[in-house]
Amino acid sequence: MRIVVLAGGIGGARFLRGLKQAAPDADITVIGNTGDDIHLFGLKVCPDLDTVMYTLGGGINEEQGWGRADETFHLKEELAAYGVGPEWFGLGDRDFATHIVRTQMITAGFPLSAVTEALCDRWKPGVRLLPMTDDRVETHVAVELDGERKAVHFQEYWVRLRASVPAEAVVPVGAEQSKPAPGVLEALAEADVILFPPSNPVVSIGTILAVPGIREAIADAGVPVVGLSPIVGDAPVRGMADKVLAAVGVESTAAAVAEHYGSGLLDGWLVDTVDADAVTRVRAAGILCRAVPLMMSGLDATTQMAREALAMAEEVREA
Amino acid sequence: MRIVVLAGGIGGARFLRGLKQAAPDADITVIGNTGDDIHLFGLKVCPDLDTVMYTLGGGINEEQGWGRADETFHLKEELAAYGVGPEWFGLGDRDFATHIVRTQMITAGFPLSAVTEALCDRWKPGVRLLPMTDDRVETHVAVELDGERKAVHFQEYWVRLRASVPAEAVVPVGAEQSKPAPGVLEALAEADVILFPPSNPVVSIGTILAVPGIREAIADAGVPVVGLSPIVGDAPVRGMADKVLAAVGVESTAAAVAEHYGSGLLDGWLVDTVDADAVTRVRAAGILCRAVPLMMSGLDATTQMAREALAMAEEVREA
Repeated sequence: MRIVVLAGGIGGARFLRGLKQAAPDADITVIGNTGDDIHLFGLKVCPDLDTVMYTLGGGINEEQGWGRADETFHLKEELAAYGVGPEWFGLGDRDFATHIVRTQMITAGFPLSAVTEALCDRWKPGVRLLPMTDDRVETHVAVELDGERKAVHFQEYWVRLRASVPAEAVVPVGAEQSKPAPGVLEALAEADVILFPPSNPVVSIGTILAVPGIREAIADAGVPVVGLSPIVGDAPVRGMADKVLAAVGVESTAAAVAEHYGSGLLDGWLVDTVDADAVTRVRAAGILCRAVPLMMSGLDATTQMAREALAMAEEVREA
Repeated sequence: MRIVVLAGGIGGARFLRGLKQAAPDADITVIGNTGDDIHLFGLKVCPDLDTVMYTLGGGINEEQGWGRADETFHLKEELAAYGVGPEWFGLGDRDFATHIVRTQMITAGFPLSAVTEALCDRWKPGVRLLPMTDDRVETHVAVELDGERKAVHFQEYWVRLRASVPAEAVVPVGAEQSKPAPGVLEALAEADVILFPPSNPVVSIGTILAVPGIREAIADAGVPVVGLSPIVGDAPVRGMADKVLAAVGVESTAAAVAEHYGSGLLDGWLVDTVDADAVTRVRAAGILCRAVPLMMSGLDATTQMAREALAMAEEVREA
């Protein structure tokens, strides 16, 4: 079975760990969000790709969900001692190596997709990890800060400001001119199932869908497309998805996110058992829906979520 | 009193610590060797400048004489895990920060002299540290390896090969086209005393002298030029100076190094007490010479060496 998963960072990565358990023989391709990529200290940092790679490759800091295990922060401390920032972005000493290797390869002319493949040669994530695009796409968030309206990099909004001010707009700068990375459209065309893990519908999956050709390839694939709600009980399971949902005019509920994707894209949608009353509304939008436990409290729970998603895909296929 | 010191790495840095003690009110300018600079992982590394900066700024690893105190090597381990080398060059996590800041500034267009000044803003070495040149000079060593004659970067010869094969030639590539960094010729012209610490006469001080204009500025300064022998008892005090002395046809003795500099450049020369028999030979070459303890076994001993050098400079001035 060929499964394609659109993934952001932590939520996507943890779901993938469950999916590997649920479908050990499946051929899994992950299309990773690169809209949150950022250049820091002259280095290209790809937080979402790395979170997937580290999580599936056994190098992740399990507690925080991002960054490396057994990490130290000496380099960052020294940069701060030189007065060089930003200090709000937590790059550890081990993590820096990934960005140095990536930047060296990018500088040498390799596209990000080839670089990601080379990095995965070490981590062996057990999935094929593709960036959504080799082109530069950078998610900016329009905010009002100190009485002034300005656009900040997504990481500045998310990490430095901790989404403490309303996001007035979320713009994946460069997306319109970008092309899907090599292998992305092929993987979608050959997929048996396409899954949206409980990743952020705006800044993770939404950004991937903003790369011209990807949304169409999913809609045209003619295979079940099943998603899992990142909103449980009207609040994001992790992160601050509600902050950016408001920017695109979507309420922070499991049902509203399904409607946001729409039946043109989505065939099935899993909501948490606490959101069982959303099922009727989602079905009314022409999307198959079921309530199952969606808290990724551990590998078993996550594996069960992946099984439910695959079962729903089967159901869609047979319908 | 204005003192100019030509310095390599460890020997120069330790001597400077003694000099600061011996002449606390002096205005000290250090002209640092940059011929051993190397690009690693896309970063510009200046080992000699950093050794001076860290030693005088209190950040040095005292035992090994180079690199940072309380250092970790996680980034380097990770690079190796990616298969990215070289592994033989010991860049620590804290040290990396210096190279990242330097590279960022160089990339932004700042000359190395301005970058060095910016880095010293943090370290406050208590001397004015100038690179010999803002231009790229790279010391290469001609060797025979596996039956083939080839040129290797000085660091590869020194650190990877540990000078285990004969150096057939030592070439400061780019030196002929280089210009002294801003402030170098001015400092020499305004100096009251010029000192050659017990640094390597070929790859440290020799490389500085290879920058067109510097040798002439020293000879024309009309002030005492006093050196300290890096060779004690026919062997280098530290490092492997004998290996590169052979390449320039100079025997590894305190007297031969003085003759190599020559009376056109050098007015006074200190040899160690074990080399007292060299005094007559050096004097015969027209260079004032005296035998004093030259082992930099601690700050007191090093301070005393600096006092001897300054006393000899006085003697030259009065002669």
